[in-house]
Amino acid sequence: MALKYLTQKLAKTIDEELMSQAGGFSIDQLMELAGLSVAQAITKIYDKSKYPHVLICCGPGNNGGDGLVAARHLFHFGYKPNIFYPKQTKNELYQRLIIQCDNLNIPFTNNLSDQLKQSDLVIDAIFGNIFKRFSFSGEVRAPFDQVIQMLKETKLPIASIDIPSAWDVEKGNISGCGFTPAMLISLTSPKLCAKQYNGIHFLGGRFVPPKLEKKYDLQLPLYPGTDQVIDITNLSSEKL
Amino acid sequence: MALKYLTQKLAKTIDEELMSQAGGFSIDQLMELAGLSVAQAITKIYDKSKYPHVLICCGPGNNGGDGLVAARHLFHFGYKPNIFYPKQTKNELYQRLIIQCDNLNIPFTNNLSDQLKQSDLVIDAIFGNIFKRFSFSGEVRAPFDQVIQMLKETKLPIASIDIPSAWDVEKGNISGCGFTPAMLISLTSPKLCAKQYNGIHFLGGRFVPPKLEKKYDLQLPLYPGTDQVIDITNLSSEKL
Repeated sequence: MALKYLTQKLAKTIDEELMSQAGGFSIDQLMELAGLSVAQAITKIYDKSKYPHVLICCGPGNNGGDGLVAARHLFHFGYKPNIFYPKQTKNELYQRLIIQCDNLNIPFTNNLSDQLKQSDLVIDAIFGNIFKRFSFSGEVRAPFDQVIQMLKETKLPIASIDIPSAWDVEKGNISGCGFTPAMLISLTSPKLCAKQYNGIHFLGGRFVPPKLEKKYDLQLPLYPGTDQVIDITNLSSEKL
Repeated sequence: MALKYLTQKLAKTIDEELMSQAGGFSIDQLMELAGLSVAQAITKIYDKSKYPHVLICCGPGNNGGDGLVAARHLFHFGYKPNIFYPKQTKNELYQRLIIQCDNLNIPFTNNLSDQLKQSDLVIDAIFGNIFKRFSFSGEVRAPFDQVIQMLKETKLPIASIDIPSAWDVEKGNISGCGFTPAMLISLTSPKLCAKQYNGIHFLGGRFVPPKLEKKYDLQLPLYPGTDQVIDITNLSSEKL
């Protein structure tokens, strides 16, 4: 079985279809399941006894929202999350996700440099795929240029959600500005850039209807048990 | 450690607080997590190889919504769900939950009697706690009077969500109209009626902030791993 790697356009089409009237999903639902799958994937590789302090770096888009949900579930799983969220999105959903983290007393930090020193693991929830304006297109604007640079320099393991930030969705780290994360958690189906990626690779998003899978020939792997994620490290190395 | 059993009033207060502006949760989020926890609990007791055909009986309120979400996750877990939903709620959330099940080709049946003959397991998602008008108050209106009667007569195992339908939330099966399910999946915290219950008992709803738990002295058990449910059968038998 070969994995299918999505173009940016197809990834966007599938997301839009899931959240269309015909798909029926709300963004609240999909983000909840995406964030939960990220948190669950983390537990499978980075045990909370060795990596208790998780720093979640959130960008302004949906990738950042997935990060906020993951932070909440990681808290419930016994980790000690900390959130760096320099450009907070004002809409109602994101404000609610922030409140949910506040209610767990998850700290929001303004000082990335200091916080990195006190962390065991970083989650990169900065840039994803859904909105083209947040994808990498040759330049990363402040403050995220510095954020990406700091993540490039850290020796901590980084787990990226869906797409390593500052990578081109299809061509990977072509600018050289990006970093290569220790772990990648693809959502729904891996994107083309993941063909360039040889690290620990999980897939999350156990909600794709078989008819959508068939329509786009996604060839999704079978998730085990009740897990919301599956380790596709070996499957994805078959591409090499 | 002793479990806390909630009055109807306190259960309502906690639900409202979670979904208030201060709590920050949307009903989409909480219903998604509730339904997922129900589906996961089912897998722990009723293996899909022995109990593939699950009939989910949904009522008109939130309990029915939890059932629709559970049906979807059970499908993804490899079961063959079938839904009986005689009084479909017209609001947008419920219409979307129906579409999500339709997109998985989960059949909606009109004939409960026939469908029971082809099922291995029943999920009782008829009446819950949240809206008082759906709680049992001495009479169950059509068509649910007959539905409850049929569930009372079936020899199939029944798993009830939150409260066995037609039980009084606090006093249990005082009218005698209700049935005793083989399994009860309490959400957030068990309700007072669960003190009368001696079967398989799970708790779901791993989203209660510690400060809310403390405020109402809920004494929730520690959920294992990344599970969204915990088996409290032994804990709850300590009440006897």
